[in-house]
Amino acid sequence: MSEETDLAVPPARGTEPERDPIEVPGFVEAVAGAVATSDVGALRELVADLHESDLARLLEALPGEDRPRLVELLGPDFDFTALTELDETARLQILEALSTRTVVEGLRELESDDAVYILEDLDEADKQQILAYLPTPERAALQRSLDYPEASAGRRMQTEFIALPPFWTVGQTLDYIGETEGLPETFFEVFVVDPTYRHSGSVPLDRLIRTRRNVKLGEVVTPDRHVVQATDDQEDVARVFERYNLISAPVVDEGGRLVGVLTVDDIVDVIQEEADEDLKALGGVAGDEELSDSFWYIARSRFSWLLLNLIAANIASFVISLFEGELQKMVALAVLMPIVASQGGNAGTQTMTVAVRALATRELRASNARRIVMRELLVGLFNGVVFAVIMAAVVFARFGLADLGYVIGLAMIINLVAAALGGILIPLGLDRLKVDPAVSSGPFVTTVTDVVGFFAFLGIASLWF
Amino acid sequence: MSEETDLAVPPARGTEPERDPIEVPGFVEAVAGAVATSDVGALRELVADLHESDLARLLEALPGEDRPRLVELLGPDFDFTALTELDETARLQILEALSTRTVVEGLRELESDDAVYILEDLDEADKQQILAYLPTPERAALQRSLDYPEASAGRRMQTEFIALPPFWTVGQTLDYIGETEGLPETFFEVFVVDPTYRHSGSVPLDRLIRTRRNVKLGEVVTPDRHVVQATDDQEDVARVFERYNLISAPVVDEGGRLVGVLTVDDIVDVIQEEADEDLKALGGVAGDEELSDSFWYIARSRFSWLLLNLIAANIASFVISLFEGELQKMVALAVLMPIVASQGGNAGTQTMTVAVRALATRELRASNARRIVMRELLVGLFNGVVFAVIMAAVVFARFGLADLGYVIGLAMIINLVAAALGGILIPLGLDRLKVDPAVSSGPFVTTVTDVVGFFAFLGIASLWF
Repeated sequence: MSEETDLAVPPARGTEPERDPIEVPGFVEAVAGAVATSDVGALRELVADLHESDLARLLEALPGEDRPRLVELLGPDFDFTALTELDETARLQILEALSTRTVVEGLRELESDDAVYILEDLDEADKQQILAYLPTPERAALQRSLDYPEASAGRRMQTEFIALPPFWTVGQTLDYIGETEGLPETFFEVFVVDPTYRHSGSVPLDRLIRTRRNVKLGEVVTPDRHVVQATDDQEDVARVFERYNLISAPVVDEGGRLVGVLTVDDIVDVIQEEADEDLKALGGVAGDEELSDSFWYIARSRFSWLLLNLIAANIASFVISLFEGELQKMVALAVLMPIVASQGGNAGTQTMTVAVRALATRELRASNARRIVMRELLVGLFNGVVFAVIMAAVVFARFGLADLGYVIGLAMIINLVAAALGGILIPLGLDRLKVDPAVSSGPFVTTVTDVVGFFAFLGIASLWF
Repeated sequence: MSEETDLAVPPARGTEPERDPIEVPGFVEAVAGAVATSDVGALRELVADLHESDLARLLEALPGEDRPRLVELLGPDFDFTALTELDETARLQILEALSTRTVVEGLRELESDDAVYILEDLDEADKQQILAYLPTPERAALQRSLDYPEASAGRRMQTEFIALPPFWTVGQTLDYIGETEGLPETFFEVFVVDPTYRHSGSVPLDRLIRTRRNVKLGEVVTPDRHVVQATDDQEDVARVFERYNLISAPVVDEGGRLVGVLTVDDIVDVIQEEADEDLKALGGVAGDEELSDSFWYIARSRFSWLLLNLIAANIASFVISLFEGELQKMVALAVLMPIVASQGGNAGTQTMTVAVRALATRELRASNARRIVMRELLVGLFNGVVFAVIMAAVVFARFGLADLGYVIGLAMIINLVAAALGGILIPLGLDRLKVDPAVSSGPFVTTVTDVVGFFAFLGIASLWF
């Protein structure tokens, strides 16, 4: 890194606020102009200082056909790391338009985890074609990562790391780091391994600097409390990083041999993705839906969830049709029934949201499930009674019928209790059946609250009047 | 740290899976037993090896009254860092039950950011009482952090860091780190400051080790691309960390003077909290609702959102009452009308979920809003037509009335287009009015889809028949 040094002390930043280069007026237009006229010089000047993430956001701001053109025009000046910051749809669209040669050259400049991230979503034929053009050692390393299951630690890990034997001294280690070319670009620790490469612990750089030069690594190493298996699911790994505030963790294979290192910046993306998926799933949207997806893709993906909802709505409608006689006799029932169903649907969604999130973060466990179910039940009962009183009063004021007020009040209590039970038991049950509760709970919960709501209100009315 | 060294190389971990100590059967019960009998020896043995995060989860698993007792029994052996890993409700409950002396002693062992995190939620009187017992330099440092606005970078930053002048050599720096007591426990870089403490850049430890000893820090320092202002909101800072994959960033005051450092492990919590709040808000739950909250707190907090929904449901009910005559004439309308409203509500929620999330992650900006609105409109129109055809067929099969099929189909198209528009324009509008769209969009969107759904279906029916 010392080539990058600058003899002058850079100016203090002072109160200068962080500016977003992409949002500077005219910037995106200027880039698009340079791409249109193939003005490589102007283009280089415009994007030279951009961070890879800004470069990615610039690509997203450009029209689809300009994106691969920009990459080809910049040639070796285009940092392929930027592609890892794009959403999948945009990344694949660019990769498909690029020549294999450009992709191969670009991938060779990347750290292994970034290269795997770009390669893994390509279809098998493209992937093999690109791998075939890579030198054998690079190909073998990438292929090994790609052989791990999708979304596993092995796919996310960086295979560049420093591993040394325990009999090396701190002084040797510092000299080795100082003199060796081709070490990882950034690293936070050295790992200690035995002759068969089995991982035994790590020494953080700050501890290395604080230890006397003649001390052996074996004396200063501490076992890593959190060792990741290459086959571990990335979400489980993210949970461990988050829980124990880790900056990095070693990755080992089945034999305990060190095969890579995971750093928190990769994990931040996993945490974000996971929260994103849960949030979208609860809103009835596919986890992989992205802002840059096409109309057609989105329409189809939303359709399937709405179809499920349509079936649920038709079941609820069937329940209503059982009481056609009552509805005919008293039209006020038709006017009021959606209130009971809607209030139940919303209360159920509240409970379900809390349950789904607590299951995702592992806060809701077998050991506290009973307490939470009881609490939700009480909340449902309490709010049921409060809203029963309110609606009874509203109905009396609006229709002058005290009996109708009692009926809606009773139905409200029943449906809010059903909503609480459905809202917590359905996610718990799905989780036990190994079905993702975030994705599947919604339609079940609203079916319960619609059916119970209409059935309780119209049923009690048919008995009462 | 060298006191912790161990001469033997620790055993390789091999394929041993990561175990969760809290979930070991009988563990929580054993701890509760030791607390009940005030058996300090047994207690120390049980919790000695626990990571602070596991200690926190152990506290959460214990009955409320045992939690402060455990802290008092362990005395100086209790690591107060564990309190930062608790949710706010549980943390405050424990702190209120502890003696001021215990809290003061505990806080003195913490890094500044953890101490601030614990202090900031206490009420002013308790906070001042505790601060009064701290030695002046510690009190001043904490008070300075506490003076920054809530949820700002100044509150989250660590005030322990290494800052050196540019004329120091790398060798001097390494020796200083090696010989000085009381440096931060872990650090990843040294910062370079001018005589007035204005920040000019940083040197990561790996670069420090890779540079020759006689080189001056001023020659090897690079300006930090991302300097955080102490008054910056933590969510904006989290966005920058995430976007640029930062591990740490310097924090400066208005004068550009270095006042602290933010590390990614604090930011991971901010990212998680933020996603959590959005998810809960969309489900109609207060962002600060926690699994350990009391029945009473939750019932009240859920009530207010349900009350809003009740008002919306009553507006929809009023719309229905406008068509009492039609409902009397044709009871099938009452049976079918919830389907139109429900389908609109779900389609609206889909669009709203995507819009709220994209606003939160800044992916939805003024520059692409128009394209997204158009796309959602098309999706709504497309799915509206598809579901119109499906429902027309269902209605014809169920009631044998072709006209009723046309009516429900037309209403379905209108409501799904309204849902798309409401789902995207309401969050965009709220965001422009500086109202959090995650919290407030839901009731508005479902009011739109209920009102439009009932009005379109019953209105068209009244014109048609």
